[in-house]
Parts: sequence; C-alpha cells; structure tokens
Amino acid sequence: MSEKMPNWLKQRAYLTPERPAIITKHETLSFQELLIRVEQLADQLTTVGVRQGMHCALLIQNNIDSIVLIRALETIGAISVMLNIRLTEKELAWQMNDADVSYCFYTSDFQDKALTAGKEVQSIKLYSITQVKSLKTSSSSSRSMFKLDELHTIMYTSGTTGKPKGVMMTYGNHWWSAIGSSLNLGIAEKDRWLICVPLFHVSGLSILMRSLFYGITIVLHERFEADAVNTSIINEQVTMISVVSAMLTTMLKQLGEETYPENLRCVLLGGGPAPMPLLELCKHKRVPVFQTYGMTETASQIVTLSPEYMLSKLGSAGKPLFPAQLRIVQDGQDMERNNEGEIVVCGPNVTKGYYKRPDATEITIQQGWLHTGDMGYLDKDGFLYVLDRRSDLIISGGENIYPAEIESVLLEHPSVLEVGVCGVESERWGEVPAAVLVFEKNSFCSGIELKQFLEERLAKYKIPKVFYSVEKLPRNASMKLLRRTLKSWIKHEKLTLLH
Amino acid sequence: MSEKMPNWLKQRAYLTPERPAIITKHETLSFQELLIRVEQLADQLTTVGVRQGMHCALLIQNNIDSIVLIRALETIGAISVMLNIRLTEKELAWQMNDADVSYCFYTSDFQDKALTAGKEVQSIKLYSITQVKSLKTSSSSSRSMFKLDELHTIMYTSGTTGKPKGVMMTYGNHWWSAIGSSLNLGIAEKDRWLICVPLFHVSGLSILMRSLFYGITIVLHERFEADAVNTSIINEQVTMISVVSAMLTTMLKQLGEETYPENLRCVLLGGGPAPMPLLELCKHKRVPVFQTYGMTETASQIVTLSPEYMLSKLGSAGKPLFPAQLRIVQDGQDMERNNEGEIVVCGPNVTKGYYKRPDATEITIQQGWLHTGDMGYLDKDGFLYVLDRRSDLIISGGENIYPAEIESVLLEHPSVLEVGVCGVESERWGEVPAAVLVFEKNSFCSGIELKQFLEERLAKYKIPKVFYSVEKLPRNASMKLLRRTLKSWIKHEKLTLLH
Repeated sequence: MSEKMPNWLKQRAYLTPERPAIITKHETLSFQELLIRVEQLADQLTTVGVRQGMHCALLIQNNIDSIVLIRALETIGAISVMLNIRLTEKELAWQMNDADVSYCFYTSDFQDKALTAGKEVQSIKLYSITQVKSLKTSSSSSRSMFKLDELHTIMYTSGTTGKPKGVMMTYGNHWWSAIGSSLNLGIAEKDRWLICVPLFHVSGLSILMRSLFYGITIVLHERFEADAVNTSIINEQVTMISVVSAMLTTMLKQLGEETYPENLRCVLLGGGPAPMPLLELCKHKRVPVFQTYGMTETASQIVTLSPEYMLSKLGSAGKPLFPAQLRIVQDGQDMERNNEGEIVVCGPNVTKGYYKRPDATEITIQQGWLHTGDMGYLDKDGFLYVLDRRSDLIISGGENIYPAEIESVLLEHPSVLEVGVCGVESERWGEVPAAVLVFEKNSFCSGIELKQFLEERLAKYKIPKVFYSVEKLPRNASMKLLRRTLKSWIKHEKLTLLH
Repeated sequence: MSEKMPNWLKQRAYLTPERPAIITKHETLSFQELLIRVEQLADQLTTVGVRQGMHCALLIQNNIDSIVLIRALETIGAISVMLNIRLTEKELAWQMNDADVSYCFYTSDFQDKALTAGKEVQSIKLYSITQVKSLKTSSSSSRSMFKLDELHTIMYTSGTTGKPKGVMMTYGNHWWSAIGSSLNLGIAEKDRWLICVPLFHVSGLSILMRSLFYGITIVLHERFEADAVNTSIINEQVTMISVVSAMLTTMLKQLGEETYPENLRCVLLGGGPAPMPLLELCKHKRVPVFQTYGMTETASQIVTLSPEYMLSKLGSAGKPLFPAQLRIVQDGQDMERNNEGEIVVCGPNVTKGYYKRPDATEITIQQGWLHTGDMGYLDKDGFLYVLDRRSDLIISGGENIYPAEIESVLLEHPSVLEVGVCGVESERWGEVPAAVLVFEKNSFCSGIELKQFLEERLAKYKIPKVFYSVEKLPRNASMKLLRRTLKSWIKHEKLTLLH
C-alpha cells in the first residue's frame, strides 16, 4: 500500500502561512501567497483542459511563474515533462513526442522555440504562462492528497544508446530525496536556499521540494551570474546553495580576497568530480563545501559528504544518504574496500525506470539497484571516491553530454564515415566535447562546416569545440570504440586538427 | 509495496561512527561503540533462542543496557513489548499473556517483579540483561534491512473498556513520527536530546529513534530529578528535552532566578494540556517551550506548535506534523473553526491498530482516521486547542490512568456495589484519581482498607488518593456514568469523605 500525504503546498501554507517561500529581485512571496497563485493557475490550467495524469511539457526560465506552474500541475496531478531550454527545436520535438505530452507551457522568452518545436508534435496545445494567467477561472482543481507512488516528473537523460530516455520520478522519489538530504545537512527554520541552477534540472527542482517540506525560503535567481550570486549570499542571509564546479570557481574568483559570511552553512557541490585545486581553495577560504554525487535517476543527491568529514575526506563524495545504499561492483562481484568498480546505488529516491523503455530500465535497474555506469571506490572508512563518470559521459558546466547522441547526428552528414566523441579538459567548463572523424573516401569537411551542420540539430553546449580527423578509430576486438584511447590521442596531439 | 530501509543503527554507525550516540553519568558511547554492543547482545539473545517475529517483554529502567536491548531486538527482528515498571505483578502478567510474549528481559532492579509476574505466564523464559550479557555468542543475527510495515513495538494503553490494549507500532510509524518531528523542530548536527522520561513510554522510545535517524546524541538520565536535569542542561550542551508539565514545573522551581543557556532550543512539553501559569512563566523566562499533543497510538507527537507561534499562540498544541492531518468532528460532521468536537487525526505515524482487538481497532480507527476521544477545537488560524483529554482519562504526572480499570478492580471488593472514578486537581501531578463508592446494603469500608485492597492489584500511581461514599451515582438516561457531574460533586464537597 502506498503512503498518502496531504497536498504538499496546501499543508505547508496551512502550517506556516507567513514564512517567506520565495524571494526574487522583484518580490517576496509567503507560502500563503504562493498557494493563492498556485490554486488560481491550477484552475486556469483546468480551464484549458489540463487533467490529472496528463503529460505537460515545460519550457521555462527560472522565475516565480515557472514555480507556480510546476506546483499548479502538481496540485492537479498532471505530470511535468521538464525540457532543457538549451535543446534545439528538433530535440525538443523529439522529447515531447516521446513523452506523449498533450500540452506545452512556456515562459515568454521561449515562445519561438516552443511554437517551432510544437509543429512537429501531433495535437499538442501550446500556451505561454502569460496566456494561461489571463484566463477566467471556473472550477476548483486542487487535490487534497498525494500518493507517493504517483508519477510526478519526467526528465530526459541520454545514454550510450544515443537517444535520450525519460526518467520517471514519483512523488515518493522527491519526498525521500529531500528527507535523506535533511538527515545529513540538517534543517534550520532560518535556512534560505539559493537557486541559480535551472529549475528544469533535478538540481533546481529538488530545491523546490525541500523548500516545501522543510518550510524554508528559496532565493531565486533567473540565471547564474557570479557577482549577483555573491551579493545575494552576503546581503540576503543565504544559508545554502547548490552549484557545480564551474560556477563555484567563478564565484570564488569574483569574490577575490573576501570570504563568505558565517550564515552560508552549505555549498552543495554536484555535477561531476570537483577539481582538487578548487576544493583546496574552499578549504583555505573556509567555504563549507559539501561534495555530492547524484543524477536524475536518483532525484538529485544520493551520496554526500557529512559536515564533520568536509576537511579530512577532501575529494570524497561521502556516504549514502540515510535511506539509501551504495555498492562497488565489478563483474557481478562486490569489491573490497579501495578497489575500483562500478557505482551501484539503491534507495527510495531511485527512479522506478525510464518512460516506455522497459529494456533500458531492465539493464540499468536490477533488483532495485541502479547501475550508474560510473566508476569509483570506497576507502577503508567507506567513503566514496568517484573516479570517472560513466566512461562516455561528458559533464560540461553541469550539463550532461552523451557522446553517442552527438555521434549519431554526425553520422547523418554525407561526408562522415565513422566518428568518435569524447570529452577534453576545459578550465572553464570542466570538460567540452571533441569529435574525431573518419571521412568517406574522397570526402572532406571543415570544422566550420561541421559546426554549422550541428547547430540546427543539437543544443549549443553539445556541439564539439574541436574536430579532428583520423584514418582509423581506436577499437577493441569486438569493435567497441575505445574512448580513453581517443582522449589520450587528443591529449598527445596525435590527430589532425580540422579548422 | 512496503519501503525497505537499511538497518537503522548499522547505517548510522556506517555514516557517522565517531559521533557520540549516548552520554550518561558513567560513560559516553559513540554510534560505532553502540553498534558493537548491540550486535554482541543480539548474538547472545539468539543464543537463548530469540528469533525474528517473537514477542519479548521488556521490564527496564533507563540505562545503556536497556537501549542496547531495544536495538538488539530490533536488529534480530523480534517485537519489543514495553512494560510499565510501575505496574503490579498481576498487571504485568496480564499484559505479557495478552501480548503472547515468549521472553521477558529485565534490568536487575526488577528481578523480583519479573519473576513473580512471570509465574503467571505459560512457558515464558525470563532473563536479566546481565545474564544474557554473560553468555558466549555463536551466530550473527543482525538483519541488513528493515521493512517499514513490520511490527516493531507493542505498548499498552487502557481505555473505556477497562482492560489495557496493546498498541501495535511498526518501523514505519516510528520512522514517520521522527521525520514529521524534524520537519517542524529542525535538525542540527550539534543537537543533544535529554531523556528523563521512561524508555518504556513512547515519549522516551521516540527519542531513541530520532537519535539514530538524525545522528544526534542522547543525554540519558536514569530517572527524573529536577536538579540533575537542570545541571545537565547547563553543563552538557543539551539542546532539546521532552517533559510533562509536572516535571517542567519542578525544574523551573529548582532553577530559581536563573535561566537556561541559549543552547537549549526546544523543551517539548507533552502529556496533557499544560497549565496556563506554567506557560506564562516559560514565556517570562524565555524557555523555548513547544506544546505538543500526541499519544501512544500516534507514536508520540502528532500536533506541535511551530517555533514562530510559541508566544502568540500560547496554550495551543499547534498544528499537525507535515505528513499528518487533523480534524474536529462532532456527530460525524467536521466542525467549523472555533467549534468544539472530538480530535480526529491521520498520518503514517498512526498505529494500524490494537493487538488482537479488531473490535477496538475498528471503533477507534475509521478509514485511517484515529478517533482520539479527546475534545478540542481549531482557532481561526487552524491551531489546535485541546480542551480535555477523553472525558474519562486522568493524566497524572505524565502517566495515563483510565478510571474504568480502577473501577473494575474496586468492583471485585465484596462491600462495593457501584463505583465511579474521576480525576481531581493536584498541584504536583496535574490530576490524581478519586473514587466515589456506593456500598452494598449494610456494608462499609474505610479508605485505608480500600487502599490496601488495591495495592496488590494496581500500580501505585493508579490508586485513588481520596475515597468518597454516596447513595447514588450520577447517571444519564441510558445509565451512563456522568463523570463530569462526579467531578463537580467532589469539587463542591457534596460527598462523604472516607478516612
């Protein structure tokens, strides 16, 4: 039997109506005020035909309207399909089709993108949030109870097979994720969590959840700008912030000789292994950085360093959250401490699977254990060290980039015979993608031409920053591409650069 | 499908092995050290034959051995039947028989009581914890996972029908209770929760649970002594404490002109409505008192005042914990705000029912809603004010006393024809029981004789402090005893006092 809970926002607004829920540059909303807006928008969404169980795509920027939209869909019981605003129209259309969405709601900035993408999605209805907000309302559409096993969100992630997969997240996944986090990071009434990561990512969405459950305030930034974030931390009593390495590096550079005030008690650092110099700098400047490891499939963090080990276990992602578990597996065997293997996790925050992909689900989740594909080891005290995200994954400024997806698009080019994509180091982004091509006989293409070809097919951040050509790609006996060899060839300049 | 979780203590000892788990006058144990003791005792308990699913009675005082015992039974998967040490041997035997216990474990102080009571329980095995601790161990008996719908504890509570009923508490009830509490009271790594309430009560047991989940320290007192508790708060960085009114009154008296240090952030005040003068004093002395309402059936608190309303809603028990719900019902109808009715609650911390009492369960829990029998109302902002515990319940120094139980014992006396028991005010205990008797024709009995008669049949705190005789008890048309009338007769001295 699935646990039921009172409607999260209604309950929070009943318990602590006057506490500030969201602070932006423009306004402050209490939980009660947020509830009023959400209930009104829910009624307006019902007026345009949204019903419980329907799939609705969201193409949104970070603002209060977007938060109100997410909560309104929740109160109706519709499923939010979170779209990455950096995707191309083609990619967006593909995801909306795959997710069987009936509606797409967007903030005004993305009107063109939404309308163009929407043309390729059958019988979809598209509305800007502003349009919906102008409607007269009729009915009351607010649910009183949520079931923890209901589907809440679909969020796309790619993989080795090329096409993105829709990660299904239930109400329970979000709830347990937030609870697990609180048992490690604590909860204080005066907490304020700054959001400068996208709401359509699990990093941003999970903060919305924590805010309701803990009754704490969100300080919402429309985008990441280091100086604005630093000013906010210093002037607005921010206690917690979620960042990736590239962001924190810029923030510390901008901060210069200064330090953060004591109210900042947690800098949650996710999105791939952090560079050691950054961690050393945080140690030196007494920035309370908590390394963490998680993914869309785990509804954000699943392994996080506890406060007391922040300094002594620098570089470690920590230990699992209280309700979760962690194993290191190689060839089906649990590895001894200090031995490398695949990171395998389990817990009530872990997704039940990928939307309409029983095959991929079966491979990834075995007896409740999620095989992350990432490599790591546990030290003698049981702390996780992440060595490498899954060998093919490129994490660039917090965005996941899957080589297979770029490769499959490049193979559509008439001059390209074979292609291998891998990540190369970037001081600013951590990594950026690079492509190594084998051309068709008597064919050739410049780097500029390839970029142009990709620009209308892939989000900008996915487009390789450099292109190389080679006679033959490195492959093993079973013809599997050896991406590590590819990386090493690039590093040692063994390839021909394409201009 | 029920959620599973890693073995709570093992997980906590894995996550934060070095944090102090328990501090007593005599020693400090880290979570790792606690785990080692628990695993050893679990093996010893297995050696004497304890197995998963068996019911084991506990007759324990507040000490580390008792905590180790509770956790060892948990790790084996045996069910703890928590006995109130103040019960008579007859009462203990009755509960052990009712709960189908196979074992009784006791701390040395209660050896005589346990052995005497045990004589009346068929094929029970009795051991002092010391005996078990001296055994050689063999096997490993520690479970790796707990299921939230498994039975964890049986704890007896009485009711209008006279005989106590075993409240069944699952792992999930305890878990959700602690999580609900944390979302209201917060969690800080440096928290220390002082236990001076009995471990066999839900007030004490629930602190053991919170300690594991939050990773916080218990400061354990063997018994309540106001000066020792005050010293502990001042010298041992205690941040939280659970008390009932009678205890807090004594503590403040003993404290005199002084105040508590700032580290004390939460005085959780339960066990019946608090007298207004006490709350006023707390307000004056800036004692951070959180009024709360709960019962064994809700695995401790279910309604608690949020920090920001501590002063403005003085006298209110607050609002439900985040996962729980609250209604005021009269004649099957939900009452408007400010109108009195029965307090009805619901949530994942609420018991699934009474052991082997489907009838009582069905009456008390309807469609998941627990009918508490207590009266109260919600003010215009939705805050609960508890007017009266269920009309027949007497709360004396935090112990629940059920008149029906005392009445049924007094009716066994040959001279007694009819009897009514109710609570009368006591400055020290809040309330104490009083008995009003109608004697058999030509029969009579002194108060002293009646006390002697009761002493071997009832725990001392249940024995009426005063006895009255009357010609006829106040009853309504359907012959139901009118306890409020009885109270008013006593108050206005309309009855004959028995010496």
